Amino acid sequence: MKVFTRIPQQRPTTPLLDRIDLPADLRQLSPAELPKLADELREFLLYSVGQTGGHFGAGLGVVELTIALHYVYNTPVEKLVWDVGHQAYPHKILTGRRERMHSIRQAGGLAAFPKREESDYDTFGVGHSSTSISAALGMAITDRLLGEGRQTVAVIGDGALTAGLAFEALNHAGHDGANLLVILNDNDMSISENVGALSTAFARVFASKTYSHLRENSKKVLQNLPPVLEFARRAEEHVKGMMSPATLFEEMGFNYVGPVDGHDVVGLAQTLRNLRTFKGPQFLHVATQKGKGFTPAENEPIKYHAITKLEKSDAGHAATSAPTGTKYSAVFGQWLCDMAQADEKLIGITPAMREGSDLVQFSERFPKRYIDVAIAEQHAVALAAGLACDGAKPVVAIYSTFLQRAYDQLIHDVAIQNLDVLFAIDRAGLVGEDGPTHAGSFDLSFLRCVPNLVIMAPKDEAECRRMLTTGYRHPGPAAVRYPRGTGPGAAIDNNLDDLPIGKAEVLREGKDIAILAFGSLVTPAQQVADALNATLINMRFIKPLDRERVLAVAASHSRLVTVEENAIMGGAGSAVSECLNDAGLSVELLQLGLPDRFIEHAKPTEMLREAGLDAAGIQAAIEQRWR
Amino acid sequence: MKVFTRIPQQRPTTPLLDRIDLPADLRQLSPAELPKLADELREFLLYSVGQTGGHFGAGLGVVELTIALHYVYNTPVEKLVWDVGHQAYPHKILTGRRERMHSIRQAGGLAAFPKREESDYDTFGVGHSSTSISAALGMAITDRLLGEGRQTVAVIGDGALTAGLAFEALNHAGHDGANLLVILNDNDMSISENVGALSTAFARVFASKTYSHLRENSKKVLQNLPPVLEFARRAEEHVKGMMSPATLFEEMGFNYVGPVDGHDVVGLAQTLRNLRTFKGPQFLHVATQKGKGFTPAENEPIKYHAITKLEKSDAGHAATSAPTGTKYSAVFGQWLCDMAQADEKLIGITPAMREGSDLVQFSERFPKRYIDVAIAEQHAVALAAGLACDGAKPVVAIYSTFLQRAYDQLIHDVAIQNLDVLFAIDRAGLVGEDGPTHAGSFDLSFLRCVPNLVIMAPKDEAECRRMLTTGYRHPGPAAVRYPRGTGPGAAIDNNLDDLPIGKAEVLREGKDIAILAFGSLVTPAQQVADALNATLINMRFIKPLDRERVLAVAASHSRLVTVEENAIMGGAGSAVSECLNDAGLSVELLQLGLPDRFIEHAKPTEMLREAGLDAAGIQAAIEQRWR
Repeated sequence: MKVFTRIPQQRPTTPLLDRIDLPADLRQLSPAELPKLADELREFLLYSVGQTGGHFGAGLGVVELTIALHYVYNTPVEKLVWDVGHQAYPHKILTGRRERMHSIRQAGGLAAFPKREESDYDTFGVGHSSTSISAALGMAITDRLLGEGRQTVAVIGDGALTAGLAFEALNHAGHDGANLLVILNDNDMSISENVGALSTAFARVFASKTYSHLRENSKKVLQNLPPVLEFARRAEEHVKGMMSPATLFEEMGFNYVGPVDGHDVVGLAQTLRNLRTFKGPQFLHVATQKGKGFTPAENEPIKYHAITKLEKSDAGHAATSAPTGTKYSAVFGQWLCDMAQADEKLIGITPAMREGSDLVQFSERFPKRYIDVAIAEQHAVALAAGLACDGAKPVVAIYSTFLQRAYDQLIHDVAIQNLDVLFAIDRAGLVGEDGPTHAGSFDLSFLRCVPNLVIMAPKDEAECRRMLTTGYRHPGPAAVRYPRGTGPGAAIDNNLDDLPIGKAEVLREGKDIAILAFGSLVTPAQQVADALNATLINMRFIKPLDRERVLAVAASHSRLVTVEENAIMGGAGSAVSECLNDAGLSVELLQLGLPDRFIEHAKPTEMLREAGLDAAGIQAAIEQRWR
Repeated sequence: MKVFTRIPQQRPTTPLLDRIDLPADLRQLSPAELPKLADELREFLLYSVGQTGGHFGAGLGVVELTIALHYVYNTPVEKLVWDVGHQAYPHKILTGRRERMHSIRQAGGLAAFPKREESDYDTFGVGHSSTSISAALGMAITDRLLGEGRQTVAVIGDGALTAGLAFEALNHAGHDGANLLVILNDNDMSISENVGALSTAFARVFASKTYSHLRENSKKVLQNLPPVLEFARRAEEHVKGMMSPATLFEEMGFNYVGPVDGHDVVGLAQTLRNLRTFKGPQFLHVATQKGKGFTPAENEPIKYHAITKLEKSDAGHAATSAPTGTKYSAVFGQWLCDMAQADEKLIGITPAMREGSDLVQFSERFPKRYIDVAIAEQHAVALAAGLACDGAKPVVAIYSTFLQRAYDQLIHDVAIQNLDVLFAIDRAGLVGEDGPTHAGSFDLSFLRCVPNLVIMAPKDEAECRRMLTTGYRHPGPAAVRYPRGTGPGAAIDNNLDDLPIGKAEVLREGKDIAILAFGSLVTPAQQVADALNATLINMRFIKPLDRERVLAVAASHSRLVTVEENAIMGGAGSAVSECLNDAGLSVELLQLGLPDRFIEHAKPTEMLREAGLDAAGIQAAIEQRWR
């Protein structure tokens, strides 16, 4: 295998890869040509992601697996379901999209993840992890009912396997007995480091001599061992106090094969060719390395999970671009440390997003009060409820889109019991290149109906910090939702000051029109208010809404406008509308927010513009309504 | 152990039990007295539930376990967390609530489930399953951080263990190492029959001689076996092709003990006394029998999951009361069979609610197209998405409150991909005695913001059937939400007719006031409209809303009223409000629906009255607004 140390800036020469427009072309190659193809694919992937930015390490780790799968299985007739999709770039390159890879994650270009509308080879759209086994099982059951005996394959990472959804699916698949191959892409690394007892168990197995022995003999595993030898192998494990993953997955009803070397493309193809003929639930355990074949990514896989595109002068390095202001996640990270310093009861919880939610500093300074529960959002929130029962002060750092996975726990375990849990909700609103699966478009709608919750959205970095303090001090459940990326650049103090709950802030007194702005859209609304001589209110609280202020504004203005980076349906603007209706007022109200459709990936500014939520769009909507 | 064949109608004599007002009194007993106490507690439980109705079989199964736990652990200083709470009646009897058991599930009386506000002994409120390990782990971590080294115990049923949340929590607990005892209450029976590979595995273990042997020697398990014997025991299992549950849970980081006899109260107490001194994660596997000690319930545990209260004439039998009209769940069950007959692509999915959602007939007539995924709501919905990818037509039957567990899958896996999945959402609105954890108060709010969804609510049984057909034929995601219990008694035809999507129905033409009613509240709204000579619209569709009709009504009436059995916040009334705002109309709008608080358990009619949503309340609210 070729190992690269730099990201090529010129398109590499890839004669074999160039012949492969579709997997059918790949199937014309001889097995002996596959390693060379893998080298070419890896080099092209490096070049391509260097040009566009995007997910990086996961794709490098599955170059050989992707080739082997499309080589052996008759895709797209046979179904291949990827999990998460960070790893789908090589798949896209081999399935008709090589020459469009330069457009990935850009407006109108390829999506960052598999997407059904984009290709017949993308059997299931994925953004959140741990769905592939469920989806593939559905396809396998459909085939049993209506189909022609085709094969279905799910690929899932070891990190994704910690999610309860994956366990639910495995448990059902083993019981159901459908023809399904689950491939565990085990790189002992999801986005952050893995957490959890199973992960530890796997790591222990891999570190053992038994595993090395097994790996060397991976191709033999398919041949049935004589029962006595098989018994001896397992007995050996038990003497060492270990259980092989085989025991677990076989017990769940799968025929377990592995671990096999995920970078031996010829061996993989041979193993898959055998497995393809088997009936019932099959489990193939593949050991891969994230960032494989690119030395910097092998050494620093977390850093190289995704990269920004190379600048022309930045040869060979994949630096993340310098932020222009303070990231909201960094505001949270700093606040968490400061509050933890002030209050020893604070416990910070992340579902496998230490870096993304910026808990790195906290995890280092307060390791005993830092909890990474792995990809397990439901447990993260139920655990927080348990922590709050006896006086700990849990702070759950979670992306808006992932909070959807813990909605029931938020309602039942936290809100009904009115427990003191703070939710720091990152990535609220549009998030850009990751597209609709990562957008946090709905949290105000789905949180607002839940009794006992306090819900806030800051206009800038300084207010975000004060809201976090406010929610933390509030003796019940509270949520602060803030956007991806940097704020408008407000100076942040080091204090732990809070805000009066349920009180809005008047930013500008104007005439006729009053704009009631929420969170991230206060800044563009400011420009509009200046241009139209409108009153501008920074609402701060979605719940409890500042009813007094809303009614006062409604009494003194004939036209109200609400603006928010959330679905209009059920969002903050509807809170204002409900308030007016409840007071028996009928005032003209223009609700601006996200439209009732999923907005495709693009730059955040482009997405906001498309939704009509930049300053120009807000002003145009107001002028159109009341011209 | 005493075995009962009839439910006593007179309060039994229970001299030992009468001495126990709190667990501290229980701890004064000698071990030899515990079996007699168990007999008395079981008889009192039979008598008590016979008087009030309620959950039944689960409580009978944990009489001995409950006694042993409170006997050994210093509750409430030491923490005992029950799962689901169906099994908490004996716990309530022993913890100061014996003389209030007659009030259970009634307005102002004891809750059906553990509830923090009700007792210091109720450490965590539960209604949905599979939360106890997360919650108890949170308490154990809090104790490590802030506490005094007290013990924490979680009890979880084998059925609840199939939920991903429980797996997430086990995985984390084993890794974390906190002092936590997880007790698996294994009765091989949740509410319906258990499903899943793990369940099968356990059943196999239990059926084996190894298990019988182990059970006989359960008390010896705590003594460390010499490694060689331990090795031999495990080796024996492997020869038989089995894995004991021990292997799984030990691999997850727990010290596994069991299975032990859950009806040997003295043995249980001894085992717990030993376990209480151990550090780190402990796992005790207890084998119990649902309905234990009451012959009819032992024989028919599903029927005796819960009972209605005994009529005076109905000595000894625990019959369910005859329904007065057609239950909505039965409308669904019949429709499902009829549509399955007409379309061989239909697949029906339930997360362990075959009886509750009324899929019994369907499961018998169409076993190949019936899927019970066990308690695994996330997987149920992701699986449906997979099924829909290749042309199967999945119907997910789910309670409104449990759909909260699959919210992310509904958004990501179904709605973003615009897949053809029908959600039959039962128990929408207030549900009565089970209280706020089982109410479906939020679905319209959390569903309405999701693009691509069609959302309907029927006014009666006949319309429910037509809406199911409508949603099924619609080539994208659709939801029909209907209430618990019986409809108003509309005659149901046998056709598979559908309705025009997005069209409301004018039920009455009146003056000045127009009532726009949704779903279950159309019937009370009819009385109000008659009384006030108001226009009445059966809106039928929450999404897409009948915009044309709303605007026409707004043009011809000065006062609009929306009524719905969902939270006002973000609900169907807000859809109407958004529609009016979008059209630039300012009309007086009164939004009636569920208030912004959790409504405590009571009879459904009482709860509706408390929420002001019966006919009298609706009329009073209208008259108060516009008197």
